[in-house]
Amino acid sequence: MAFPGKKLINDPNDVVTEFIEGLVETYPGLQYLDGFPQVKVVLRADVSQTTYDKVAIISGGGSGHEPAHAGFVGEGMLTAAICGDIFASPPVDSILAGIRAVTGPKGCLLIVKNYTGDRLNFGLAAEQAKSEGYKVETVIVGDDCALPPPRGIAGRRGLAGTILVHKVAGAAAAAGLPLADVAAEAKRASEMVGTMGVALSVCTLPGQVTSDRLGPGKMELGLGIHGEPGAAVVDLQPVDVVVSHVLTQILSPETNYVPITRGSRVVLMVNGLGGTPISELMIATGKAVPKLQLEHGLAVDRVYTGSFMTSLDMAGFSISIMKADPVILQRLDASTKAPYWPVAADGNHPPAKIPVPVPPSWSAKSDESRPSQLNEQGQILEAAIEASANAIINLKDSLNEWDSKVGDGDCGSTMCRGAKAILEDIKNYPLNDAAETVNEIGSSMGRVMGGTSGILYTIFCKAASTQLKSSSNSGVMGKQWAEALAASIAAISKYGGASAGYRTLLDALIPALSVLQERLNAGDEPSTAFVVSSEAAIAGAESTKHMQAQAGRSTYVSGEILSSVPDPGAMAAATWYRAAALVVKEKYNRQGD
Amino acid sequence: MAFPGKKLINDPNDVVTEFIEGLVETYPGLQYLDGFPQVKVVLRADVSQTTYDKVAIISGGGSGHEPAHAGFVGEGMLTAAICGDIFASPPVDSILAGIRAVTGPKGCLLIVKNYTGDRLNFGLAAEQAKSEGYKVETVIVGDDCALPPPRGIAGRRGLAGTILVHKVAGAAAAAGLPLADVAAEAKRASEMVGTMGVALSVCTLPGQVTSDRLGPGKMELGLGIHGEPGAAVVDLQPVDVVVSHVLTQILSPETNYVPITRGSRVVLMVNGLGGTPISELMIATGKAVPKLQLEHGLAVDRVYTGSFMTSLDMAGFSISIMKADPVILQRLDASTKAPYWPVAADGNHPPAKIPVPVPPSWSAKSDESRPSQLNEQGQILEAAIEASANAIINLKDSLNEWDSKVGDGDCGSTMCRGAKAILEDIKNYPLNDAAETVNEIGSSMGRVMGGTSGILYTIFCKAASTQLKSSSNSGVMGKQWAEALAASIAAISKYGGASAGYRTLLDALIPALSVLQERLNAGDEPSTAFVVSSEAAIAGAESTKHMQAQAGRSTYVSGEILSSVPDPGAMAAATWYRAAALVVKEKYNRQGD
Repeated sequence: MAFPGKKLINDPNDVVTEFIEGLVETYPGLQYLDGFPQVKVVLRADVSQTTYDKVAIISGGGSGHEPAHAGFVGEGMLTAAICGDIFASPPVDSILAGIRAVTGPKGCLLIVKNYTGDRLNFGLAAEQAKSEGYKVETVIVGDDCALPPPRGIAGRRGLAGTILVHKVAGAAAAAGLPLADVAAEAKRASEMVGTMGVALSVCTLPGQVTSDRLGPGKMELGLGIHGEPGAAVVDLQPVDVVVSHVLTQILSPETNYVPITRGSRVVLMVNGLGGTPISELMIATGKAVPKLQLEHGLAVDRVYTGSFMTSLDMAGFSISIMKADPVILQRLDASTKAPYWPVAADGNHPPAKIPVPVPPSWSAKSDESRPSQLNEQGQILEAAIEASANAIINLKDSLNEWDSKVGDGDCGSTMCRGAKAILEDIKNYPLNDAAETVNEIGSSMGRVMGGTSGILYTIFCKAASTQLKSSSNSGVMGKQWAEALAASIAAISKYGGASAGYRTLLDALIPALSVLQERLNAGDEPSTAFVVSSEAAIAGAESTKHMQAQAGRSTYVSGEILSSVPDPGAMAAATWYRAAALVVKEKYNRQGD
Repeated sequence: MAFPGKKLINDPNDVVTEFIEGLVETYPGLQYLDGFPQVKVVLRADVSQTTYDKVAIISGGGSGHEPAHAGFVGEGMLTAAICGDIFASPPVDSILAGIRAVTGPKGCLLIVKNYTGDRLNFGLAAEQAKSEGYKVETVIVGDDCALPPPRGIAGRRGLAGTILVHKVAGAAAAAGLPLADVAAEAKRASEMVGTMGVALSVCTLPGQVTSDRLGPGKMELGLGIHGEPGAAVVDLQPVDVVVSHVLTQILSPETNYVPITRGSRVVLMVNGLGGTPISELMIATGKAVPKLQLEHGLAVDRVYTGSFMTSLDMAGFSISIMKADPVILQRLDASTKAPYWPVAADGNHPPAKIPVPVPPSWSAKSDESRPSQLNEQGQILEAAIEASANAIINLKDSLNEWDSKVGDGDCGSTMCRGAKAILEDIKNYPLNDAAETVNEIGSSMGRVMGGTSGILYTIFCKAASTQLKSSSNSGVMGKQWAEALAASIAAISKYGGASAGYRTLLDALIPALSVLQERLNAGDEPSTAFVVSSEAAIAGAESTKHMQAQAGRSTYVSGEILSSVPDPGAMAAATWYRAAALVVKEKYNRQGD
């Protein structure tokens, strides 16, 4: 059964008008024209044609590209935006109403993306307005670099580069220039910019079923912003490779779409298509800047990263490169009240980023290292540590799976990171000194794990180490290890706030400690007591299935889901504990042979 | 086969460091601490602890919530952000490094979201920093309103309301207040805000397979921001219903989570979770504001709509409501250089939005209306118009399907809108006057269709009408209709730029005109010639399968895909043309009986 694509909307036919209502509620400086919702024109609340003494900048087109175009209305950028239905050019009457509402004696500039519908509607409206006595100029933006020339009558599509043209024109108008000069700057800017996009998904029109055109593991190059298929479908690549390809395509000397050559100064825009998180856009930016500098020999003067010209909820981005010069930079840096023009991206970068030095670590760094000769206890300790770490590495996928049901799904990956760090660092552990070695284990884990488990294990090891130090005058025996475990449990219970039955790692460790102390008091051989107590650890971890969580993210999960999996933290603790116990027992048995 | 969720990234382990690199490239005012990438601290480029004479505001936590927290670093908001791995609290050493890097003699305030890991790590770092002589205060934010109290040791989670606490604290620090006062304002703000979220999808951790936990047609209420399951899974609802539920939950007098009662002044934040386009967030805002005003009796002083505290690529939003007073509003309105704090949302709204009046329409509005008695020609014209409109309505789904393969998927919906408008307006058409009626058809279509097809059909009808007017002195006969069709074809070819063979509606209409003229010249009875020519229209439309597109969005689509479907615009034109022809023929035959 095909379901309509999921969207948080009401009637699919109302998305554009309801978007505008929310926009105007959010930004007190924006207003809509009467005739709304049939006439969908967003304009500056402080401009009316009778008093406006600047050139009005008007753009628009089909909706579905939010925040474009209405989000760029504001002093210093657009004076009005004419909104069509989703992906449909606005009707001539709406455009004409917008022109009449904001155009004063200095006239208006229409900035139009190169699509047939927009050309027709804005063109007819412009002709009609001129016949009514308004001064009107039109600049068409076609910045698409995805397809080779020539492109029939369609030419190159207008994409995110249009936003940069809006900004240049808006700033020129705000500076008081006459219409001819504003239009000339906008036209020149439109000739300086090239754009190409890449998509991971097809956008879903409100109320419609999501197309399965683009299969898993595939991406589209050279997409449009209206859901039309891209120029090519290829296997998903690391973003590094994607960025390289897109930059090369935009700057291709064969198509010669933008007048940019080695040594040019440029502006970079990485534009999200609606469903791409800012983190992924920033990753693309972080790769594009050095590639432009080092591989293409360009100076990158400004960087704009964000979702400016989207395609509904499409996942992907476009990259635009504009040739920069002092006039263009001045226009781009000029202040604006348009809500979606990026702030804090103005001004020159420092010559190079000089990272701020980090102060010295507070962690007491041991200067001890591995002794040249391990004593018996050191050998057993090494074997136990290695067995525990390897047991955790082997359990990684199961831990992740359990955690994905009750937490954030990374318990296995986090624990595995700690285990690997231990195996890497063990060659430097002072293994004949149990207290220091345990402290070092905590440092290894704390360094790489992060998260709750990282800090809890650091506390766990520090507490154990302190306890061992205070009691190991005559070598570390079973009793001392039991006391260390007791100290660790007390510490993590104190800082983490959990107790037995809270569905945490304590539910493995507390039963283990209890059995360990009991068996030692009963006179069992310590390695045997260790193994018996490890069975209690496993049983305790398994029993977490029947517990309601009281700590950590699992507290937000229903009992039904919880009862299907054990607490991953408890299982991890029981697993390393048991692996250590079995190795210790085996070593002692062998020495007994 | 399970594929990892699609993301535009490189190594999944590098997403946080590569995000920070891009962020610092984009914003010249941001910098990172040395020790990067192991120590992931983003700080103001202009602050160092030796010279900083304000209280430093430090926040952070697990990554995956971008732009939080690093995107809120800037004068007037955060001084530094400490970034952990995805959904993992940052290690103590990183927090301590951040504290040392920016804390001057006035001390620092740590703002921590209420999660165990963050509490542990920031708490230990704070204690350590205090032991080194720094003045440190800590405020814990737990704004979650999704779950009923009490919540074990976990308490309420820190969600998007934390951003508002950042802003209040940052502005108080920028105003020069001492640490105790800054901490008191932050603590008070944290007690004034409540948040609840709703999600349509589960977030996908980098490099992992997307969970299918949330089926089609379902949504989660009361979600967290780390991929943990929500409090309840329910059927997808219109956003109106969702907003009502969430507002009622946050403001519930039973949980009494926020001290807001009828008559309070409030601030609203609608926060996207990473994969939700701004258009959907604005729709939620547009509904939330009047509901708060009318249903809850609150004054809404400020509105912030955007993606501030996300959960990777999760689709959905959270709503936060904060009780406002003059001090809080002053802090929220204070200027900041933090890149992601929304601009242009400051200041009071006008008492009510007064829509700007739209100037009168330029469309020449006919004042003619339906005659009381239809003559023979009027009756036939009415039947032909109704048959054509109904044929288009019946073809809607096929047109949408074809268009989804070669265009933007809405040809059927758009044409259907036009057809329905005609059927609605026909009762006012001056049907005895063919020229005026055709003009009115164009007005009906132009009014509701938008897009390329809307304007082309308006031009089509206007041209036909003008031609009919000039020739209809002695009634409109077959020859006059053929001349009108010729004028229409010439007009849309001129404005749209297409010719025969460009894969447009002309490929249906040009062959039809050609056969019509030929049969009329050969002396055929006009209604017979009309039917014969309509067969040429259908054949012409079918033949578009073999054409490479030269106009419109189809020009970007591969030949292979194009050959599987006809041009939807041509099929629509052939369909209404043929429906009209068949009815006219039937009417003439009946009259001949």
